[in-house]
Amino acid sequence: MSKLSKSIDELVAAFKKFPTVGEKSATRFAYFLMKQPKSEVKKLIDAIVTLKSEVKFCSNCFSLDDSDPCCICANPKRDDKVICVVETPVDLRAIERTKKYAGKYFVLHGVLSPLDGITPRDLRIDKLIALVKGRGVKEVILATNPRAQGETTANYIKGQFAGLGIKVSRIAYGVPVGSELEYVDSLSLARSLEGRVQY
Amino acid sequence: MSKLSKSIDELVAAFKKFPTVGEKSATRFAYFLMKQPKSEVKKLIDAIVTLKSEVKFCSNCFSLDDSDPCCICANPKRDDKVICVVETPVDLRAIERTKKYAGKYFVLHGVLSPLDGITPRDLRIDKLIALVKGRGVKEVILATNPRAQGETTANYIKGQFAGLGIKVSRIAYGVPVGSELEYVDSLSLARSLEGRVQY
Repeated sequence: MSKLSKSIDELVAAFKKFPTVGEKSATRFAYFLMKQPKSEVKKLIDAIVTLKSEVKFCSNCFSLDDSDPCCICANPKRDDKVICVVETPVDLRAIERTKKYAGKYFVLHGVLSPLDGITPRDLRIDKLIALVKGRGVKEVILATNPRAQGETTANYIKGQFAGLGIKVSRIAYGVPVGSELEYVDSLSLARSLEGRVQY
Repeated sequence: MSKLSKSIDELVAAFKKFPTVGEKSATRFAYFLMKQPKSEVKKLIDAIVTLKSEVKFCSNCFSLDDSDPCCICANPKRDDKVICVVETPVDLRAIERTKKYAGKYFVLHGVLSPLDGITPRDLRIDKLIALVKGRGVKEVILATNPRAQGETTANYIKGQFAGLGIKVSRIAYGVPVGSELEYVDSLSLARSLEGRVQY
């Protein structure tokens, strides 16, 4: 390609690093921004800057929020005897969208993957155990993704609670095997929460 | 959804305005940025700011570039007797990617759409005509999109050059390279048969 606008190329390159974004979407985004009024672009930039400066890890559940503890941990209306374990904050949001869950969360920020060197320590599973014991949690819902590594991780966590008299459940296979929670429609995800089985 | 991080929500809302981006992609983008080092995020913001301040319309071809005239119009190696008419700068980039075109461009920034009030005046077709006449252009390639409105627009422009002794061509319809005939829609297949060339 003959050298086109350097400014546009640089922004396209930046957008191409976004997940699922290729050359064509990145180009569309750049031209979209070019056509936006300055006020809208300023809003976007402010939102990015605020995100980087304001958002922090919740020291209870390791979710991401503007405050620590996060708004879910700080909410007295939510049942703190039930903990839903998810891989990522994106999965947490997906479950919140179902409006069917009123307990708390624990975010692993990953799955066990010995080949990639990701161990229980990296997922802070010791903190999860401490939290469950300290708070007298009655049920741990394992909502890792319904694929091999999520399953392995769920299995490992289940093992950690063996013999402690804590109910450990796994979201039901109402969700299609091989999918990612993030892309499942809210209704199916809600069904899979309601239909969770003793694990 | 119970109120989650305001910072994240605001960025998700900003990304949702991007073309083809819905709630889920927007959320992914926000979490992606959250995990990026500050230096990468700064690069993105700088690229956006530069884009808005540096990029301008080329007063010849109405493409967008850091300079006016744009780098294509200013390039003496490109044939200025051939003009390729495209709907958008994104289409221009698509053609540049083919590395098969060495002429100049004219960007309409839209298609004729009387119902939406988009007239030849909005597409600056008078400027195109002036450019073609003034420069002694020999061929005008109509590369508007192969759909109804692009076709109408191409047809209209063709009409404007009738009797002027200028060659007006239209990009060929056909089967996409690498496709399987079985899966190509009948209309395209019919067009590719009609437009068959000596082999």
